[in-house]
Amino acid sequence: MNKNTLFQHGTMQMLVEGLLEGTLPLSELLKHGNIGIGTGDGVDGELVILDGVGYKIDVSGPAVKLPDDFKVTYADVGFADYHKFKSYQNVKLTEMLKDVLTKNNAQNQFFAILTKGVFQKIRTRSSKKSRKPYPSLGEIAENQVEFEAENISGTMITYYTPTVFQGIGVSGFHNHFLADDLSFGGHVLAATVKDVTVSVQPIENFELHLSIDNQEFLNANLSDTSNLDNVISKSE
Amino acid sequence: MNKNTLFQHGTMQMLVEGLLEGTLPLSELLKHGNIGIGTGDGVDGELVILDGVGYKIDVSGPAVKLPDDFKVTYADVGFADYHKFKSYQNVKLTEMLKDVLTKNNAQNQFFAILTKGVFQKIRTRSSKKSRKPYPSLGEIAENQVEFEAENISGTMITYYTPTVFQGIGVSGFHNHFLADDLSFGGHVLAATVKDVTVSVQPIENFELHLSIDNQEFLNANLSDTSNLDNVISKSE
Repeated sequence: MNKNTLFQHGTMQMLVEGLLEGTLPLSELLKHGNIGIGTGDGVDGELVILDGVGYKIDVSGPAVKLPDDFKVTYADVGFADYHKFKSYQNVKLTEMLKDVLTKNNAQNQFFAILTKGVFQKIRTRSSKKSRKPYPSLGEIAENQVEFEAENISGTMITYYTPTVFQGIGVSGFHNHFLADDLSFGGHVLAATVKDVTVSVQPIENFELHLSIDNQEFLNANLSDTSNLDNVISKSE
Repeated sequence: MNKNTLFQHGTMQMLVEGLLEGTLPLSELLKHGNIGIGTGDGVDGELVILDGVGYKIDVSGPAVKLPDDFKVTYADVGFADYHKFKSYQNVKLTEMLKDVLTKNNAQNQFFAILTKGVFQKIRTRSSKKSRKPYPSLGEIAENQVEFEAENISGTMITYYTPTVFQGIGVSGFHNHFLADDLSFGGHVLAATVKDVTVSVQPIENFELHLSIDNQEFLNANLSDTSNLDNVISKSE
């Protein structure tokens, strides 16, 4: 396995179309990386994988360490091999990430960004686990819970996905956060950093794993992709 | 490496946008598979990889065995592990492939199909190698050369790509043909089979390799994907 490989289980299209079943045990996912983001069975919280340990931030708030048999619906993981890029102070997250991407000329490739330090303000969200029959990702997004924190130390894991991969992943930046003390985290909606160090890892190989034994996936009608962009923009 | 992995070098979007430089030597590509299809530097012919040997069908007609240092622009390869599915007689290619896909319930996954036997009639095309500054894939398609053969024995390598991957690959079926006697081949435009055996290999992992050292790729503007579907449909 090349170190600069991003392994992805599932697609965003599957989430949009309500294929929310957890189809990969965490223990299997961890064979493909020690750092990453994702979501669990029925969109059971927002996942953060850090130093080979899986955490879930669900609607209760604090991060919970996950068991090996936790079922993952969607995830992006890799083996951490970041190199330090730059420190940033007192800047909005969107500006910071744009600067990182532009200065690394990385807009056409998958690109992993790791941000460690103090966040001045950060707003995250998490979702409540759904059970079958699953609602659409759009309906789940309407029922999400939001959290806010100030002056919090932690790690933000970001994957940048080029435009043409919208629907496979989330095109643009996809950020999950985990506080150092595990008290807070989730899918990042907005943030301003106070004092952080940004490291980067260019991705050369994108390895997508599909659950070709899952009958619901195989039987789904996934031929209409016209509404994908709209739903992903709203819910991610 | 999982046997049911499809390794792809480059994207169709890159071809559409005129990024036609060969960025991977054949010898490197062959580490990821012993069967496959693709194209070379400047769209230098249509490639067929069979039993670990690379062939090119260019505008001159017959297949030419390729040297190890031949540079590949785009390719899909895997390690052959097909199982026999069914025999077909006297049927149009489009109908046959649709039947194979439907009976295998494979519309949502990458799916490799191998067709061996006698083709009643087959029409293929190839393209002339372009040099920098490269024309667009649309312009190249206008200057393609077409070939026809009847009652010809050979192998057709097909990859089916689900709809959401349009622009990354060619969504739908992508077929290249090589005659047993190497006298004929290319990108298949239409065919009727006479008596063939179809084998299939479901793909679980799709591994995409991008040339993140290639400056033209990194500097290209690939953010507008609105015309992709149209150009690919016309040229593939």
